[in-house]
Amino acid sequence: MKFSKIPTATITRLSIYSRYLEALAQEGVKIIASDKLAEKCGINPAQIRKDLAYFGEFGIRGVGYFVKELLFEIKRILGLNKIWKMALVGIGNLGSALLAHQNFIRQGYEFAAVFDVDPAKVGRRLPSGQVIYHLDDLEKVVKEKEIEIGVIATPANKAQAVAQRLADAGVKAILNFAPTQLQVSDGMAVENVDFTVKLDNLAYHLTMGNP
Amino acid sequence: MKFSKIPTATITRLSIYSRYLEALAQEGVKIIASDKLAEKCGINPAQIRKDLAYFGEFGIRGVGYFVKELLFEIKRILGLNKIWKMALVGIGNLGSALLAHQNFIRQGYEFAAVFDVDPAKVGRRLPSGQVIYHLDDLEKVVKEKEIEIGVIATPANKAQAVAQRLADAGVKAILNFAPTQLQVSDGMAVENVDFTVKLDNLAYHLTMGNP
Repeated sequence: MKFSKIPTATITRLSIYSRYLEALAQEGVKIIASDKLAEKCGINPAQIRKDLAYFGEFGIRGVGYFVKELLFEIKRILGLNKIWKMALVGIGNLGSALLAHQNFIRQGYEFAAVFDVDPAKVGRRLPSGQVIYHLDDLEKVVKEKEIEIGVIATPANKAQAVAQRLADAGVKAILNFAPTQLQVSDGMAVENVDFTVKLDNLAYHLTMGNP
Repeated sequence: MKFSKIPTATITRLSIYSRYLEALAQEGVKIIASDKLAEKCGINPAQIRKDLAYFGEFGIRGVGYFVKELLFEIKRILGLNKIWKMALVGIGNLGSALLAHQNFIRQGYEFAAVFDVDPAKVGRRLPSGQVIYHLDDLEKVVKEKEIEIGVIATPANKAQAVAQRLADAGVKAILNFAPTQLQVSDGMAVENVDFTVKLDNLAYHLTMGNP
């Protein structure tokens, strides 16, 4: 298994498979045919088989996949068999919405520390339980709380400086919500959340798919 | 050109190409080699050529793509040579953050109407200029303002009912931020925004890519 050769698109699809498998497991479904799983995920069956083949043999020909087994394996592959500790920087509307979003902890992502620079916010305890730290304490808190992922929800013009501070504090992965391209050094992984990319799919559907 | 056969992944990548081409156009870059564009987008050059081949011939062998021309064509393909009118339902933290996000209007998406059910919010004028309508007026306002896309930023347990009301009002595309799977009828396109899928890519990077 050459893990470094796995395409990012495969990893993203594994993540999508895991969401559906979780829903199936909760419904008590034990086995799912690969065609059915493919249909649920909106992906063709050959693609699912190809994606899983990177990591070994799964499922039984003519029967399908064992839901819990496949879910467990995908979570192991993705590194989701643990809680990931995140630092959130920027407690405006977006940051507050992220803290309230149940999906993070449900998927194993914990906001272990939150930061802002606004004197009116620093020191306040949030409904979600965290006390807001000043950004100046980033390095110290990241070490103490063993933060692994930084989440940037600042205005666009502050995001690059925050990314640099996260990198200096030893964080190796950033989820960036600010509408700007971050310049980071090698070894730092950045995922940008751009809501409008999904809107482009809808615009295309409305323009072409729906004549 | 068989538009209905274009994979969703291709449409998503076109959208990503357009973001980089826009940045290049702003920097005054006139021509970009396909290898360079591929590198910028983190996609292999063969994939870019394959994606564009669905729609015609672009670029000049040994030279590259004319930035503005390719950008114009991609925007035409995606249906982005117009302003899309959106209705936002749910003006909590997330909804407020979306209204403040500059990317939407920059990419041609306008929040033409906003809705909530909270009596303390309905009738208020937002910093972004819109007056908050009551959800009860959805059908009337959607028709008057010629809304084409619904954006759901409600709590999870309200999202399905809102999707149904949007469908009844004639909206054919939904961007869903609520952490729930919507059941919609054929002909309605739904894109779910799940922030945690991007986190899974980071978790995988931290687990495997960074040994």
